[in-house]
Amino acid sequence: MSKEQKTKKNSAASFYLRPSASSAVKSPSAVTSPLRLRLLPSAVESAIAGSSVIRKMFEQGLELKKKFGADKVYDFSIGNPDLPTPAKAAEVLRTLADHAADPMAFGYCPNAGLPAVREALAARLATEQCVGVTAQEVIVSVGAAGGLVSFFRSVLEPGDEILVPSPYFLEYRVYVGHFGGVLVPVPMAAPSFALDVAALAAKVTPKTRVILINTPNNPTGVIYSQEQLAELGRLLEKVNAGRERPVFLLSDEPYRLLAYDGITVPPVLPLSPYAVVVGSYSKSLSLAGERVGYVAVNPAMPEVGKMMAALTLMTRALGFVNAPVIGQKLVLSLLDSGVDVAVYDRRRKAMAEVLTAAGLSFAMPQGAFYFFVQAPGGDDAAFTQRLAAENILAVPGGGFGCPGYFRVAFCVDEAIIRNSAPAWRNVAQAL
Amino acid sequence: MSKEQKTKKNSAASFYLRPSASSAVKSPSAVTSPLRLRLLPSAVESAIAGSSVIRKMFEQGLELKKKFGADKVYDFSIGNPDLPTPAKAAEVLRTLADHAADPMAFGYCPNAGLPAVREALAARLATEQCVGVTAQEVIVSVGAAGGLVSFFRSVLEPGDEILVPSPYFLEYRVYVGHFGGVLVPVPMAAPSFALDVAALAAKVTPKTRVILINTPNNPTGVIYSQEQLAELGRLLEKVNAGRERPVFLLSDEPYRLLAYDGITVPPVLPLSPYAVVVGSYSKSLSLAGERVGYVAVNPAMPEVGKMMAALTLMTRALGFVNAPVIGQKLVLSLLDSGVDVAVYDRRRKAMAEVLTAAGLSFAMPQGAFYFFVQAPGGDDAAFTQRLAAENILAVPGGGFGCPGYFRVAFCVDEAIIRNSAPAWRNVAQAL
Repeated sequence: MSKEQKTKKNSAASFYLRPSASSAVKSPSAVTSPLRLRLLPSAVESAIAGSSVIRKMFEQGLELKKKFGADKVYDFSIGNPDLPTPAKAAEVLRTLADHAADPMAFGYCPNAGLPAVREALAARLATEQCVGVTAQEVIVSVGAAGGLVSFFRSVLEPGDEILVPSPYFLEYRVYVGHFGGVLVPVPMAAPSFALDVAALAAKVTPKTRVILINTPNNPTGVIYSQEQLAELGRLLEKVNAGRERPVFLLSDEPYRLLAYDGITVPPVLPLSPYAVVVGSYSKSLSLAGERVGYVAVNPAMPEVGKMMAALTLMTRALGFVNAPVIGQKLVLSLLDSGVDVAVYDRRRKAMAEVLTAAGLSFAMPQGAFYFFVQAPGGDDAAFTQRLAAENILAVPGGGFGCPGYFRVAFCVDEAIIRNSAPAWRNVAQAL
Repeated sequence: MSKEQKTKKNSAASFYLRPSASSAVKSPSAVTSPLRLRLLPSAVESAIAGSSVIRKMFEQGLELKKKFGADKVYDFSIGNPDLPTPAKAAEVLRTLADHAADPMAFGYCPNAGLPAVREALAARLATEQCVGVTAQEVIVSVGAAGGLVSFFRSVLEPGDEILVPSPYFLEYRVYVGHFGGVLVPVPMAAPSFALDVAALAAKVTPKTRVILINTPNNPTGVIYSQEQLAELGRLLEKVNAGRERPVFLLSDEPYRLLAYDGITVPPVLPLSPYAVVVGSYSKSLSLAGERVGYVAVNPAMPEVGKMMAALTLMTRALGFVNAPVIGQKLVLSLLDSGVDVAVYDRRRKAMAEVLTAAGLSFAMPQGAFYFFVQAPGGDDAAFTQRLAAENILAVPGGGFGCPGYFRVAFCVDEAIIRNSAPAWRNVAQAL
């Protein structure tokens, strides 16, 4: 049965009410000019059209895998953490099973998260961020994404500008757009894409409300250095002197624990009293589907209690209500564990070899699990199409606000990375 | 160490950067007129102030319980389902534990939900709603709340009006307000608060975008009858004839499976091609903390694929990303189970006896777990304060847009309900 037939059948089955007399009579205008249905706002229609590009790429990948077999398709398109969750997860789930019949075992929890989880996160973040953050300055969010949206809802007014180093994670524009925020991408210099504070400073206006950074960075893999961050802190201090509506420094850090070459990601929370850090355990604990993250606020923020009240309120008001309780308990028990970052590191080195052998140019990523590679010829869309013809899937840089490059995710089996080498060479040699 | 001291200590510890020369010099204006910090938008500040009323009630409850013991406080303020989750939950968690080390065991899933869960929900909803809904017309949402917010984000433009029978669940105003929607409460007649379609019809304007109903209703416990709903369907049909921007019929049904006296909640999805139903398993499976719900759309909706694309996109774009995978798997396995509704029914009858003995007036709730009771004297805030003085906690009707009444949640142990009888009588006799 075709989709159309099915709809018709449903349509017939779906009306147990007889049409009323009033609507059975067609109005004259309906006869002369057919109704132009506007089901959705035009902005929503545009957003769907935009997101269908990525959807098409995803579907292209599925088709290729069906046609050639999953091991013959080199899918480097998606940052889906594939290492197993630390083994203790099984123990946590068995304990939960033993208590599954308790009343409220899976009941509502406070909007800001289970108190024990907030305490544990605060202790951990105090060390990571070198700030004496307490449970009162931490809320458990529905992943980093939920934390970012709750934060933007808490602080943005229509027309507010959010500066972000470019290339940038493409969802940021959508997150701020819900509330009338305007994302202002500020290009960073290739090939390192290091933090260029002067470039950010040049874009600060009275409308600037947030400077948003992402370190380790998606898509470039760069980790901002302590010196660059210190300069950013001085910019914030200068901008906020005498300003009624402060500029927040928001750091999105879902990849903080995925850093290589012995690098520790420098803390961001101490850089400004208006600093806010958002993170998650989707990557470091491979819990992406469970949606548990956090928002941490510098305790030195003036009126910090108001900020925490707003974040807590918006967690409820946006419909998150609370981060899922089982996921929270998993994070609590696994907080001192982590996936084996050495595996990602080996894949990183393997991918670097493969890309180098194909003659491609890139800066070695310091964290996360992406390479951001220069597209030979400069046309990233055309080049990724050539790659797709060799069963290699990668994302054009245009989607990150940086055409001329493409992103390669290396959170896939090392064998697939190594086996992709001839395909890369074929594309490179054809140019 | 006081909170203030702690903040100061944190503040000192939090700046590893030296103040820059530029900001160390105070500007003349800073000296003459002290900075008026505007940390948050004024609308957010107002929302915090509003929500702190409920917060205060919650804190009052905690204080009373600390002072008198939990069994001496009759807390009927919160609709937190307290019956145990069906026993099979333990088995599901043990199976998940056995597979916890699989790659992607807790990884991302499609934004619209796990395909198997969508299939199972569709099969269930086809029966409940008497419409041939398929997996393609169902998305798994982060609870009913997440589904509502995703829907409003998908269809609202600033200034759009949302009609809702009043009294109403207080969060609706917040949900639509994120996106410029204007909630228009339409008073229903006491004491039954049955659906008055003529009253709704009188409030339809060209700006009307959604008619939102909630059956079984929070706070009144009323279940809208098939006749009233059929009339509502005819109103929708009439309103949408020749209208470019259709009016949606949105039914919020988290209590659908909690109905008493042998009543089956009549289906809403067949009432209009523009009907959308939102529900959750927070109540019927006592999984409120896990945040799993659904949005189901009438397959006869013109351009239904566009609606599903918008709901899926907004689930991602609002930061939900996907309903938590463990919760989804719990719902999948428990879909044919349910909490023991007979327990709630016994509590309902016990509460009715207690309220009647105290001489209070109310309509017997047909579903959900609330009584909406007339406040003697007419001042609901004053009356609930009198109740609190007797350790009885209930919510004033003003919070639901209906002063003169108060809400009593009966999802608490039957013994507590029965033990509260003398306290109710004390309050009633004092009047």
